[in-house]
Amino acid sequence: MNFEPLQNTRIIDAALGKEVDKIPVWIMRQAGRYLPEFRELRSKYDFFTMCQTPKLACEVTLMPIKRFELDAAIIFSDILVIPKALGMQIELVSGRGMVFPSPLKSPADIDTLQPINVKEKLSYVFEAITLTRHSLKGKVPLLGFSGAPWTLMCFMVEGESSSTKSKAKSWLYKYPEESKRLLDLLSDIIIEYIVGQIEAGAQMIQLFETLAEYLNKSMFDVYCLSYIRKINASVRELLKKRGIPEVPMVIFAKGAHFALKELSESGYEVVSIDWTVSPEEARKVMNPNVTLQGNLDPCALYAAPESLKQVTEKMVSTFGKKRYIANLGHGIYPDMDPDNVEVFIDAVHSF
Amino acid sequence: MNFEPLQNTRIIDAALGKEVDKIPVWIMRQAGRYLPEFRELRSKYDFFTMCQTPKLACEVTLMPIKRFELDAAIIFSDILVIPKALGMQIELVSGRGMVFPSPLKSPADIDTLQPINVKEKLSYVFEAITLTRHSLKGKVPLLGFSGAPWTLMCFMVEGESSSTKSKAKSWLYKYPEESKRLLDLLSDIIIEYIVGQIEAGAQMIQLFETLAEYLNKSMFDVYCLSYIRKINASVRELLKKRGIPEVPMVIFAKGAHFALKELSESGYEVVSIDWTVSPEEARKVMNPNVTLQGNLDPCALYAAPESLKQVTEKMVSTFGKKRYIANLGHGIYPDMDPDNVEVFIDAVHSF
Repeated sequence: MNFEPLQNTRIIDAALGKEVDKIPVWIMRQAGRYLPEFRELRSKYDFFTMCQTPKLACEVTLMPIKRFELDAAIIFSDILVIPKALGMQIELVSGRGMVFPSPLKSPADIDTLQPINVKEKLSYVFEAITLTRHSLKGKVPLLGFSGAPWTLMCFMVEGESSSTKSKAKSWLYKYPEESKRLLDLLSDIIIEYIVGQIEAGAQMIQLFETLAEYLNKSMFDVYCLSYIRKINASVRELLKKRGIPEVPMVIFAKGAHFALKELSESGYEVVSIDWTVSPEEARKVMNPNVTLQGNLDPCALYAAPESLKQVTEKMVSTFGKKRYIANLGHGIYPDMDPDNVEVFIDAVHSF
Repeated sequence: MNFEPLQNTRIIDAALGKEVDKIPVWIMRQAGRYLPEFRELRSKYDFFTMCQTPKLACEVTLMPIKRFELDAAIIFSDILVIPKALGMQIELVSGRGMVFPSPLKSPADIDTLQPINVKEKLSYVFEAITLTRHSLKGKVPLLGFSGAPWTLMCFMVEGESSSTKSKAKSWLYKYPEESKRLLDLLSDIIIEYIVGQIEAGAQMIQLFETLAEYLNKSMFDVYCLSYIRKINASVRELLKKRGIPEVPMVIFAKGAHFALKELSESGYEVVSIDWTVSPEEARKVMNPNVTLQGNLDPCALYAAPESLKQVTEKMVSTFGKKRYIANLGHGIYPDMDPDNVEVFIDAVHSF
């Protein structure tokens, strides 16, 4: 593919446990609605058109890189491209978020999902990655990502936002075997999807199990952790088989405070944690051979600059410079002031 | 008041660390929409009319007691009676839940809250408690409850459901002093409100800090825990001063997995925990001189009876019979089958 050599290797180095000159930092959902330039482009195009048009996805991915001293770009896309590829209709409805007009109502609906060739059906993501990697000219690494099986299942069954996820969770209690069938089906796609992203040029991958927080430990073990492990192992196996070099993998299981140790032993180089876990606690219970990523409360960016600087400094000094990637504990909110993002990034870098 | 003597003392005994013949059990939101008899009454009256009419609140409180072998009744009311008493308008909107048409938009709005005499303004709750306590004829104890300051503040600032609580949380970051002023104001009312409930006949009190889960440990310490401690100490002081006997106090800070030890040392006899904390972990880190309450995943009630029985038995056997009150890890959902509630209660009692 003839990509230009990487100039800023901080995030990759931190992920692999190497020394870094400065703590690397990126922000979940950094290419998003809090940026006026994003909102302007978004006013012209539908959300999924932006995801599905490599030129637009590339343009959006680069927006925060042009504005801030970030140490990584992350491809503009959405975790719901997988259910969409499986034939599910998805609409972004103002005030209601992503809505599936026909969610999976019972296990029989699993059979309505269209079998897919990931390579073809999600080619637009791979093309966007290759184009963006070229456009970055090696300035910073390009991250790819995917939703994890339980999180995708949750959206597919709930159909729209829910404060309890009780529909999706009821499947786990009522239809354990059928739930596993769906999670297996999703895992197989996710594995191919991640490998495809790496093949296309992604230099690090984050797996988002955003809805882990709704489960207890025993349910998480069965319905999340086993798939998280399997995806990691299978991706590496498939890369080897196809002669594609491995890249660092990040797991973010939001709210899985009960499985920090297990996550740190699940084969991922990096474990991303949310803000409800203190850096001290995370360092104490987790495998010291993984890199931690996180975990500023996204709302801390509402604080006055001086106060934001203080909480950021406290966070980075507690995590320390070794095996650490600074980030928020979840995606940035749409009403955030970009100036405060700069304060956050500077506070990390000047540590 | 000449209340009849209490026949079933299991919950009070468990709260105080005494031996019990059977593990006591009650269910958060046990007098609620999952009961057809509740839905029938609700079809005739507005939600707050039901709360504000002692005869109706009493009728609803007794519904689950007539149907199930529960070890406690909990007065039918809502945590939002306090913001309502402060002059805030609240509407229950179908599909949107509780909505405040005029939430607190900035700290200046704190001054629009009407100063109140709790004894007068919330007299309907006290009357409902006295009436229900008489109607129970000592069958089981009657619990009272209140929302905790941060949880109430969150509703008052957000105005309606929010997946991030970012408006209310932004106050903590942007206006720390004004937030404390509001939390202090609410604490003073909560203290009087709890004392009033005990004076009216409540035999145990639960304080709900339901929205603790949105905070990190350092914010929780400042904006929740200090008020939780203060409320407990002040209630006991005021009871003493007025010559009213103390009752056991329960704290439920949902999602506060990072503060289990601190909560168990905050002066409450009982700490209620959500389902994301395993019984083993809770027993390990918490003060052994408090009673634990909880913590079945509410969704476990969707399971088939045999499977529900198994998870319940596993939970109670891990908590053990000593210093334990069985409950769900949060309120029961409106679509739950009452038959499964019976399976749960029986599984606890037959342990």
